Amino acid sequence: MQSLTSLLSTYDPLTGEIAGASTVERHLCDLRGCFADSAAFEAALARANPLLYSVAAVAPAQGEGELHYGVGKIMPGKIGDEYYMTKGHLHAWRPAAEFYFGLSGEGVMLLEDEATGESRMLPLRPNSAVYVPGFTAHRTMNVGPTPLTYIGVYPARAGHDYSTIAKANFRCIVVERDGKPVMLERPART
Amino acid sequence: MQSLTSLLSTYDPLTGEIAGASTVERHLCDLRGCFADSAAFEAALARANPLLYSVAAVAPAQGEGELHYGVGKIMPGKIGDEYYMTKGHLHAWRPAAEFYFGLSGEGVMLLEDEATGESRMLPLRPNSAVYVPGFTAHRTMNVGPTPLTYIGVYPARAGHDYSTIAKANFRCIVVERDGKPVMLERPART
Repeated sequence: MQSLTSLLSTYDPLTGEIAGASTVERHLCDLRGCFADSAAFEAALARANPLLYSVAAVAPAQGEGELHYGVGKIMPGKIGDEYYMTKGHLHAWRPAAEFYFGLSGEGVMLLEDEATGESRMLPLRPNSAVYVPGFTAHRTMNVGPTPLTYIGVYPARAGHDYSTIAKANFRCIVVERDGKPVMLERPART
Repeated sequence: MQSLTSLLSTYDPLTGEIAGASTVERHLCDLRGCFADSAAFEAALARANPLLYSVAAVAPAQGEGELHYGVGKIMPGKIGDEYYMTKGHLHAWRPAAEFYFGLSGEGVMLLEDEATGESRMLPLRPNSAVYVPGFTAHRTMNVGPTPLTYIGVYPARAGHDYSTIAKANFRCIVVERDGKPVMLERPART
């Protein structure tokens, strides 16, 4: 069996840190191409390059049947009408699902069936779980005024495919309308 | 994609209930053979048959790569020196791992490698995760004065094998010594 330290981990539901775990940080410059309003993106980036989100991950074992988890933290903010978001990804091993559990703050998840393009927007809040089925692209946004933190649990062999999303992007965007998140068709690039 | 209701679930971290989910309850009578002190077990059962634990489960999809989760709740109490516990199980599909996340109260998990018998006792507390690797029997105990609640996430195809544990039981027991949980070799049956 693995060592005690690899079987036990402790996270902070407010900072999103996992003690002793590696963390990936994404700044505004890393999200080029994600936001619909590219003029607003370039204007914001000309002013500053803030941290948009971080993900800490725990990977105790590899192989079929094993699991990993991460804690994500997305800062509050918007580019144009769009909320700060993750790049979004598919799993490299397409059948891999993922469970998200909200820890603090208020988010939404955008799910898109890779085969059909069918899209769903789901709330991500403390004490609730969002299921991302296999074969489904997923992106997370912070729609509240405070940092959003959440747990994601996925098969060890899931892997991350960012490039498919980077090429085609999601079919839908999530924007603020009258103070609330609304899912819309992505506007044609101008 | 599945319906919105099957992708989104809400749980109560204190009661352990998942809105709209099926729940299994285990009372003292269901745990016959689990506790080392069988005389204390029979004496307690002669007095009352309390609820020991419940598990609510969410199963949005079946098949390879998909995931399920449950919320468990174990009541505080002891039989002899042993804490109230779950029956414990192996996964029917042995490679299946499980992540536990503590929600409220104070617990420990007993892990036992099926092949080697190697045993580990790990704390299960809010804001911490315990990893149960594949091929590992696991049992959860409430070692505090209030109900223990926790999330468990596992592959959809894991399944539950209770019978192997029911026959052989775990090699170790967890008892209270000076107010703290201690793992000991299971005493020979008298």
